[in-house]
Amino acid sequence: MDLELELKKRSEFFNIQLEKFLRNGTPNNLYDAVRHLPLAGGKRLRPCMAMITCESVKGDIIKVIPFSIALELVHNFTLVHDDIMDKSKLRRNIPAVHIKYGEPTAIIAGDLLFAKAFESMHNITTDYSIFKNIEYGLIDCVKEICEGQQLDMEYEKRKIISEYEYIEMIRKKTAVFFQFAAEGGAILGGGTTEEIHALNEYGLNLGLGFQIWDDYLDISSDEKTLGKDIGNDIRNGKKTLIAVHCLNTATGNEKELLEDVFGNRYATEQEVKQVYNLFIKLKSIDYAKNCALNYCEKAKKALDSLPDSDAKNILFELAIYAINRRK
Amino acid sequence: MDLELELKKRSEFFNIQLEKFLRNGTPNNLYDAVRHLPLAGGKRLRPCMAMITCESVKGDIIKVIPFSIALELVHNFTLVHDDIMDKSKLRRNIPAVHIKYGEPTAIIAGDLLFAKAFESMHNITTDYSIFKNIEYGLIDCVKEICEGQQLDMEYEKRKIISEYEYIEMIRKKTAVFFQFAAEGGAILGGGTTEEIHALNEYGLNLGLGFQIWDDYLDISSDEKTLGKDIGNDIRNGKKTLIAVHCLNTATGNEKELLEDVFGNRYATEQEVKQVYNLFIKLKSIDYAKNCALNYCEKAKKALDSLPDSDAKNILFELAIYAINRRK
Repeated sequence: MDLELELKKRSEFFNIQLEKFLRNGTPNNLYDAVRHLPLAGGKRLRPCMAMITCESVKGDIIKVIPFSIALELVHNFTLVHDDIMDKSKLRRNIPAVHIKYGEPTAIIAGDLLFAKAFESMHNITTDYSIFKNIEYGLIDCVKEICEGQQLDMEYEKRKIISEYEYIEMIRKKTAVFFQFAAEGGAILGGGTTEEIHALNEYGLNLGLGFQIWDDYLDISSDEKTLGKDIGNDIRNGKKTLIAVHCLNTATGNEKELLEDVFGNRYATEQEVKQVYNLFIKLKSIDYAKNCALNYCEKAKKALDSLPDSDAKNILFELAIYAINRRK
Repeated sequence: MDLELELKKRSEFFNIQLEKFLRNGTPNNLYDAVRHLPLAGGKRLRPCMAMITCESVKGDIIKVIPFSIALELVHNFTLVHDDIMDKSKLRRNIPAVHIKYGEPTAIIAGDLLFAKAFESMHNITTDYSIFKNIEYGLIDCVKEICEGQQLDMEYEKRKIISEYEYIEMIRKKTAVFFQFAAEGGAILGGGTTEEIHALNEYGLNLGLGFQIWDDYLDISSDEKTLGKDIGNDIRNGKKTLIAVHCLNTATGNEKELLEDVFGNRYATEQEVKQVYNLFIKLKSIDYAKNCALNYCEKAKKALDSLPDSDAKNILFELAIYAINRRK
């Protein structure tokens, strides 16, 4: 089974529907800003996950398209606003919306993407209680994503956070959305309570594993050169699981070093290097890597209760891919 | 009938429900930012309008509360984001959310208010088709408000716009929301098709009249001193109905004067004064005032088809108040 091909088949089908959904609207400049990011590609992981979990419970993939569009639009709305907050200039290798269209139009474009996500939800054909259940789930997701983004910003300014706080932050910021995509696909596909529960578990654990693997990748892909990304993260006090583990494990002189350097915008190259060496010495990088592996193991395990199918195999492969990818 | 007292009775009842709805949530700092503006008072015109139109069709006011909360939260979400775009420092006589909590948290707080508006919609008890109809109306409103805000920004940069474009811009930016509040109250109150249609008409025309009266007030309240607000609006090229009328009526030297001064950030006091005098000479201020009066007449007329009631009287008085208020 070729995971990349399976994802590509679905994302290409999805892209046609998305493009159709975003086609019209005036004023032109605003709707160009609305389309800028969603039509610039991206992995479409969330919509694909909803499609595949729908298939895994023998559901009709067509029924899950409006839901998948809503997921992708909410994801993009948060990216547009996050890029403004983080002052990021590039996204998907093109200028961020606020760079190309200015900040005011980018704020409105984000709001409009949010509104259009709910518009897409209205194209779901299902009964009242399921519709309300699914839509409430989306609202809850957005609330948690907002809370997670706020926590992420607040944690950068705090000296130390616990591992529990870190996991809770990435759960809100990233994992709930995978969880909801997987669960929603199963619900709209007509899955049993047990299947829905299993796919909820799958999505949550995959989301956590995915995010922690991102932390790991950021540092390991950069380790030979110890490039500016690691340096920036250390100077900004970014709370990755690696940093969290290190901060909570260090004692004595090492703790003092972290207190001086971690989150210190004026830290020297040499100080950054010392912190990086501490990450290695205290096995914080290995710790994070293992953590990602464990979550993805749990994700795979959650699939046990599903009947065998091609879709199930794809979900299984996706959980392997999550902790094997190099980017 | 004491309009102020009638509005106060309803807004006080509404405030208790709103406060309850916004009570909980962590992280604290984010939810403080979420509550900052909605709990800082305000006229509560939109929720009150929904409550009163509900009463005017003999509906139960309790049924319209979740809808009213949603209206107020959407209104506040747009204000939080607008204040960031406009770089406004004050709102309701307190610091704007982005001034007190910083821009990133203000962006998220606006997003969260939007999500919570939809959360409140889920507390509406009604059947599926009505729920979908009402919720779709809210989504459509938000889309039009976004479009209207974008047009407002784009029109500031354009030399001239037609009266039709101006009306369409304020319809989207302001009036659709009054229209939807009035219509939604009538739908949830169980009004007849004719009543719902009448209250839709009422809300739209009241909203247009209200906004144009705001334009008129801004200039007339300031006219003795020709204070900085008029000056700023002229220098920024702000397209009020007064300006639009003047730009479309002026010819020859007057047209040249407008082209030089209107929208010119470096215009002198004397030039601003000349433009103001042109507003008077070409009767642009009177024109806008009459326009507001006409819309509010239409709003009153729309009420004809409703049965007599205290609520109908309040709506009637509200349409008189809209074009008699001094602030």
